[in-house]
Amino acid sequence: MASDEEYMRLALAAARKAGNATWRNPRVGSCLVKDGKVLATGFHQHYGGFHAERDTISKLTPEQLSNSTIYVTLEPCCHYGKQPPCTQLIIDSGIKRVVVGETDPHSLVTGKGIAALRQAGLEVSTGLLAKEASQLNEHYNYFYQTGLSYVTLKQAMTLDHMLAKKGVRTAITGAEAWTRVHQERAGYQAVLIGSETAIIDDPLLLTSEDLVHPPVRVVLDRRGRLLEHLDLRLFSDKRAETWILTENPAFLEQDMPKQVKIFALSDGKISTSIKILADQGVQSVYAEGGAHLQESLLAAGLVNDVISYVAPRFLGRGTEAAVAAEALDLKDVQTEQVGDDVRIYGRIKDV
Amino acid sequence: MASDEEYMRLALAAARKAGNATWRNPRVGSCLVKDGKVLATGFHQHYGGFHAERDTISKLTPEQLSNSTIYVTLEPCCHYGKQPPCTQLIIDSGIKRVVVGETDPHSLVTGKGIAALRQAGLEVSTGLLAKEASQLNEHYNYFYQTGLSYVTLKQAMTLDHMLAKKGVRTAITGAEAWTRVHQERAGYQAVLIGSETAIIDDPLLLTSEDLVHPPVRVVLDRRGRLLEHLDLRLFSDKRAETWILTENPAFLEQDMPKQVKIFALSDGKISTSIKILADQGVQSVYAEGGAHLQESLLAAGLVNDVISYVAPRFLGRGTEAAVAAEALDLKDVQTEQVGDDVRIYGRIKDV
Repeated sequence: MASDEEYMRLALAAARKAGNATWRNPRVGSCLVKDGKVLATGFHQHYGGFHAERDTISKLTPEQLSNSTIYVTLEPCCHYGKQPPCTQLIIDSGIKRVVVGETDPHSLVTGKGIAALRQAGLEVSTGLLAKEASQLNEHYNYFYQTGLSYVTLKQAMTLDHMLAKKGVRTAITGAEAWTRVHQERAGYQAVLIGSETAIIDDPLLLTSEDLVHPPVRVVLDRRGRLLEHLDLRLFSDKRAETWILTENPAFLEQDMPKQVKIFALSDGKISTSIKILADQGVQSVYAEGGAHLQESLLAAGLVNDVISYVAPRFLGRGTEAAVAAEALDLKDVQTEQVGDDVRIYGRIKDV
Repeated sequence: MASDEEYMRLALAAARKAGNATWRNPRVGSCLVKDGKVLATGFHQHYGGFHAERDTISKLTPEQLSNSTIYVTLEPCCHYGKQPPCTQLIIDSGIKRVVVGETDPHSLVTGKGIAALRQAGLEVSTGLLAKEASQLNEHYNYFYQTGLSYVTLKQAMTLDHMLAKKGVRTAITGAEAWTRVHQERAGYQAVLIGSETAIIDDPLLLTSEDLVHPPVRVVLDRRGRLLEHLDLRLFSDKRAETWILTENPAFLEQDMPKQVKIFALSDGKISTSIKILADQGVQSVYAEGGAHLQESLLAAGLVNDVISYVAPRFLGRGTEAAVAAEALDLKDVQTEQVGDDVRIYGRIKDV
């Protein structure tokens, strides 16, 4: 007979199957066990779809469910969202024991789901493999714990710290790193760049995945420089939304294609920009540059982690990458060769 | 019965055992085979010691040697140096066939050793695993092919491209990278720094190996700033020589400890400094910085390869690492995590 931990690992594995499809919802998996036998596993497959508990329970008969144990990576919800509350479903199904990984950081849920189950007479254990469970949803957790978007600073630079030749779109890293960046973007709800990068690179900022909710392409354009560059692909390409954050009131008057939204900044502080994104429900931001934008994020203490692609080449004097305002050590460092380039990952903030 | 290639691999493996002890001599290994049996292997163990051929042959009787084949990674010498010529020893020993890896790039030897053997009626094959054989002695080969010292540029920098806090000795990388640098230095005949680095860091520039010929510590001090810093450890520490290259004539008059030598620079060109080192027989230089010195080396096309240690941290505005004068791609890139730091290796010049 397997242990609680082994059943929870099955639930964790199920949760991971969702990839990036849960969007603003957490990844959740569950596993139903009776008399030492795994009867079903399930997971939250995509935003708007069944929650993990319902996905699992719907596969079984009332007889199978009666007196069974359900393992779920995240505290079951007890409120009506896109789906009716899972706590009621669990109670109604005749399950007698619930083993929970992580307590939901979402204030609408925290502790309440567990309380509701206990009140109905079910046995509830919490915190089993809680660390692994929380790793499923680092962005979601941070967003609900702090009210801020989780920010990953991503750089691609040469050994002499250059991002590009001055004023020219420059491929710094190789094809493998390029592919990897497109994969990484898919794990975020927004990709953020500055106006200079938008103008010089004319990027599309798409991902390698065909997502129902691709990351929003956000350009911080305080002065409204993009008003002179309305031919940029970010304005015409319809595969994702494009948001412009600006202090220039003329931008708000400008006629724009449907997928483009303009947000007014009340001041030039980078925290104001991130606040707007968080208010829009953006849980995670992949901040690609340029250097000035990244320096602001670092200086404001808004960066959660850093991904640096270092290309094994010198460029000579050009547009330089970000320099921090003060010393910052990275934690949980991971290094990897990606093609001929090096990918260095590390955290600034603890999770 | 094994193949010529397998015997040559034994000779290569023997050669490598010398580590850094051959100093200005090449690493050489040999393997003696008769009737399909390996009778002995040998190698040049240290500068001034037996050559590989003699090391191998001295282990065997005239009967064993008669009509045998010797595999040697480098063309046997035919001139009197620290040892009598190996060609004569081979001829006298009754060996009938000689298989050579690399032709010696040393102008006193090239092709002459092989010619001498052939003239004496021995069968000689050349070029077997020549690439592997030449990799044993990249610095030596480059030095004798070009008359220049082989230069490795070594940097240690943060993600924001800083070498140090302004004017302060700063530990950028961790203990593992530090240890690795001490190991790497042992593979060079000189360690080169600029006067600014000497003054701020007061380094010892020693290696982790107890070498009979440790790398010379070379400081490029055009203006003679070190005259005001004669208390530096480089002047008092006796574990290696310290050479000062300077345009300041006062330095030549200065009384110095025995292990310190002063060389007059005729001009401020970095190529003049490297020429002085090459004229002194220095085959290889580990150029540690600062940035200005490294930028000069890069701009003058004097750098053979690059070792960059990147520390996963930001420092904030300080003393910046080198920026190249023009774009330079690295080849044969190797990436490795060393402690928490990343070591990126790549070649600028082909070997």
